[in-house]
Amino acid sequence: MTRKVRVGLLGCGVVGTGIVRLLHDNARTIEGRLGAPIEIVGIAVRDLSKPRDAIVSAPLVTEDAMSVATHPDVDVVVEVMGGLHPAGELVKAALDLGKHVVTANKALLAEEGDALLETAEQKKVDLYFEAAVAGGIPIIRVLREGLASDRIVALRGIVNGTSNYVLSRMQHEGLDFADVLKDAQRLGYAEADPTLDVGGGDAAHKLAILATLAYGARVHPREILKEGIDTVGAVDMRYAERFGFVIKPLAIARPVPWGREEALDLRVHPALVSKSSVLASIGGALNAVFVEGAMLGPCLMSGPGAGALPTAMSVVSDIVDVGRNMLVDSHARVPTRAFRGESLQTMRVRPSAEHRCRWYLRFSVADQAGVLARIAGVLGGFDVSIEQMVQEGGRGGSSVPATLVMLTHEAREGDVREALSEIARLAYCHEAPRALRVEEDA
Amino acid sequence: MTRKVRVGLLGCGVVGTGIVRLLHDNARTIEGRLGAPIEIVGIAVRDLSKPRDAIVSAPLVTEDAMSVATHPDVDVVVEVMGGLHPAGELVKAALDLGKHVVTANKALLAEEGDALLETAEQKKVDLYFEAAVAGGIPIIRVLREGLASDRIVALRGIVNGTSNYVLSRMQHEGLDFADVLKDAQRLGYAEADPTLDVGGGDAAHKLAILATLAYGARVHPREILKEGIDTVGAVDMRYAERFGFVIKPLAIARPVPWGREEALDLRVHPALVSKSSVLASIGGALNAVFVEGAMLGPCLMSGPGAGALPTAMSVVSDIVDVGRNMLVDSHARVPTRAFRGESLQTMRVRPSAEHRCRWYLRFSVADQAGVLARIAGVLGGFDVSIEQMVQEGGRGGSSVPATLVMLTHEAREGDVREALSEIARLAYCHEAPRALRVEEDA
Repeated sequence: MTRKVRVGLLGCGVVGTGIVRLLHDNARTIEGRLGAPIEIVGIAVRDLSKPRDAIVSAPLVTEDAMSVATHPDVDVVVEVMGGLHPAGELVKAALDLGKHVVTANKALLAEEGDALLETAEQKKVDLYFEAAVAGGIPIIRVLREGLASDRIVALRGIVNGTSNYVLSRMQHEGLDFADVLKDAQRLGYAEADPTLDVGGGDAAHKLAILATLAYGARVHPREILKEGIDTVGAVDMRYAERFGFVIKPLAIARPVPWGREEALDLRVHPALVSKSSVLASIGGALNAVFVEGAMLGPCLMSGPGAGALPTAMSVVSDIVDVGRNMLVDSHARVPTRAFRGESLQTMRVRPSAEHRCRWYLRFSVADQAGVLARIAGVLGGFDVSIEQMVQEGGRGGSSVPATLVMLTHEAREGDVREALSEIARLAYCHEAPRALRVEEDA
Repeated sequence: MTRKVRVGLLGCGVVGTGIVRLLHDNARTIEGRLGAPIEIVGIAVRDLSKPRDAIVSAPLVTEDAMSVATHPDVDVVVEVMGGLHPAGELVKAALDLGKHVVTANKALLAEEGDALLETAEQKKVDLYFEAAVAGGIPIIRVLREGLASDRIVALRGIVNGTSNYVLSRMQHEGLDFADVLKDAQRLGYAEADPTLDVGGGDAAHKLAILATLAYGARVHPREILKEGIDTVGAVDMRYAERFGFVIKPLAIARPVPWGREEALDLRVHPALVSKSSVLASIGGALNAVFVEGAMLGPCLMSGPGAGALPTAMSVVSDIVDVGRNMLVDSHARVPTRAFRGESLQTMRVRPSAEHRCRWYLRFSVADQAGVLARIAGVLGGFDVSIEQMVQEGGRGGSSVPATLVMLTHEAREGDVREALSEIARLAYCHEAPRALRVEEDA
C-alpha cells in the first residue's frame, strides 16, 4: 500500500499554478477523503526564467519535461500543458512506464485518445480527464458512473464558454459578433486566435469525448458537423427573439435510426432554442450539459466551463480518484471510456444531410415584386415549407435591399442546402442566405 | 473473481418493479460497462397475492424478506421498501453477513445511517444510497468523488419534489396551498398523508445526508431547522413577486463562523429567492442541488427528484458501482460518507437564532391610525429595520383588516422572532404574523 500519492506536474501556467495552490490549501480535506497525502515531486515548465507564484516551490521546477514524466518517484503524471506536442509524447512515455496520467487536454484526447487509452488499458493504469470537458462540471464521472445503468437518449451541451459568452452578450446588448469578440479578447474571455473556440473546433473535441462515453462509440472530431458562431449577426438574435427563441452554441450527440442500423447524429453549431428552455438560461461563459436518459429523463448540469481554479479542481479530483485506486489496487475498475474495450462499438455517424429540423432562414434580397414568390417556389421545390415569415426594410421598388426572415416547418438538411444554393445564385440575392437550425428539445 | 453480480431485492412496488425492468431492458449496456451480468436471485414482497408486472419472475418472489436479505447466493441486497422497520433490521442483517447494500431509504439513512455505515465500514462492504437524495440526480457521487478535491462553501437545494410542485403551481396559477395540495394528491404528486413532504421532514432527512457528505459532519435530522411550505399563502407569492422574488422550498447547508469555531448552518424552509436566480427556474416537481465549491465556484445539477424509473436508474448505477468493486475487490475504495472514518468531524450546528438574513414579513392588522408606527417601533426596538413596505386593504378606519407587507434589512433571526411574538400580542393584530427568509445567493 502506497502511503503517498506522488505527482509530476507538466505545465505550470494558470491551471498548473491553480493545482499547486489547491493541493496546498485543501491538503487537510483531501487527505481526509483520500486517506493519504498528495505530494508534488516535480514541475515541468517551458521557461524557467518566467516569474511564478510563490506557492510554486522553486527546487521542484525544471525545463526537462521528459524527466518529470518518466521520473521513478512519480506515480501520477498530470498534464496541463495543452497542445499535441510534446504533450502527446510525454503522456505516452508515462503510460509506457506504467504511470497513471491525469490530463485536461481535450485536443490530445480527441485526436489521439484512442491510442493513448488503449495503451492505458494494456498497462492497466488510469488515464483520467475530467477537466478536459466542461471544466469544473463533473460530467465525465456522471456519464461513466452516475448514469452507468441507463441508455443515453440524447446529450445536448454548451461546452465552449467563449462562444456562450459572445452570443450571450450579443443577445443582451444587441451588439455584433466582431465587436463582442474584440471586447472578449480584451477581457480574457477569448484567445488572441479565437478560431478554435468560435469556429466550433474546441466544442467538437469535447463532443467526440462525450459521445464516446455516452455511447461507447469511437468518434473522431472530423466526423462531427461543425459550424462556428461567427456567422451569427445581431440581426439574427433579434429575429430569433421575435420568434420566441435565443441563439445558443450547442454540441449535440444522439443515436438515431439510419436505414437498418442505429447511427450517431453529431453536431456542433449555433442553434435556436426556445426562450423557456433550460439551455436558454445558461448565460455568460457558463457551460452546461443536458443529458437525457431513457430511464432518468432529463438531467442538467451547469457550472464554470473553464478558469484556472475550476479546472484545477477537476484535475485534483481525478488525482484523488487515481490515488484511491492506488491505495486499494483497483486500477481499471471503471473503464476509461465508460464501456469495456470489447463492448466499444464502431457506430457510424449519420451524414448531416439526413438531419431533419425546423430552420431559421434569412435572405437579403432586392426589393422587387415577385422575389418572395420566387424564393418560396425554390424552397417548395425542395420540400421546404414556410411556417412563419417576416419581411422588412426596402420600400417597394427602392434600391435598399429587403430582409426576408423565415421559420420553416421541419425539413431535411440536404434539401435545405440545395434550395439555399439555388437561391444564392438568383440575381436579386444580395448576400449568401443565412441558415440556423432550431433545436426543439433543448 | 465473481463473474456475476447477484442481487436480492427487498420491495417490489413501483421502484422495485422499475429496477427489474431496467435490469432487463438495459442488460446489454450494463454488461458492456460493468463487464459482468447482474442477476436477480430473490425478490421480497409484502403481499404475494398482489398482481404484478409480468417482468417480475414469479418463482423469485417471496414474502420472507429475511430469507432474501441473508440468502447465501446474494451478493448485493437492494432495499427499496422504505420506512424504518423492518428495512433497518434487514439491512443490518445483510451487512452483518458481509453483503453489500444499496438503498433508496433516506429516512433509514438519516435516522440510523451512522450505525449502519459504521457496520459497513467494519465489515469492509459497500453501503450505497445515490437514490436516497434527489432521485435521478447523481449528487451523492458528485459530492463524494467529483468534488473530492474541493471545500464546499455552500449547498442549496430543492430536494422535495412535492413541495416544489405545490409552490410552483401556487406561483403560476395564483392558487392557495390547500387547493393545490388536494389536486397534487389526486394527480399522484403528493401522498395521502403529505406531512413528511410539505412539512419539511423529508427534505431534512436528505439534507442530513448531504451535509455529512459535503462536510464530513455527523448530522441528525432533529438538529435541522425545519419549516414546512404549508404556511405560505397565495398572497405571499403575489407580494414576493412584487418585490422581485419567487418562493422556493429550500434545503441549505453551509459552514459558518460561530464564536471561535466553525459550525454548520442547516435549514429547511420555504424562502424568497431572486426571480433571476437559477433555483427560481427549477419548476414543477424537479429537484436541483446548487453546490458552491471554494475552487469550483457555483455548479448546478437538476433533474427528476423522484419517480419509479429515475430512482431505479440511480439504484442500478449503485449496483454497477458495487459490482465494479466486487470484480476488482476494491470495496471501501471511496469512503461511504465521503470522508474516512477518522476524519469525520463532530461539527456543531449553529443555533438558528443566530442566522442573519433579510426577511419578508406579513401582518394582518386593524385598519387604525398608529398601527404601522407601533409595529415599526417594536421591530426597531429589536434592531429589525424596514427596507420596503406595502400597505393594502382597509380604507382608513374601516372594519376590514389591512395587510402590511415588509421586506426588512438583514436582521438576526432571534431578534425577528422576539419582535414578532411581541407584535402578535398587540390587540390590533388579527392573525399571527407570517415571516419568510430571503436567501440571497440562491
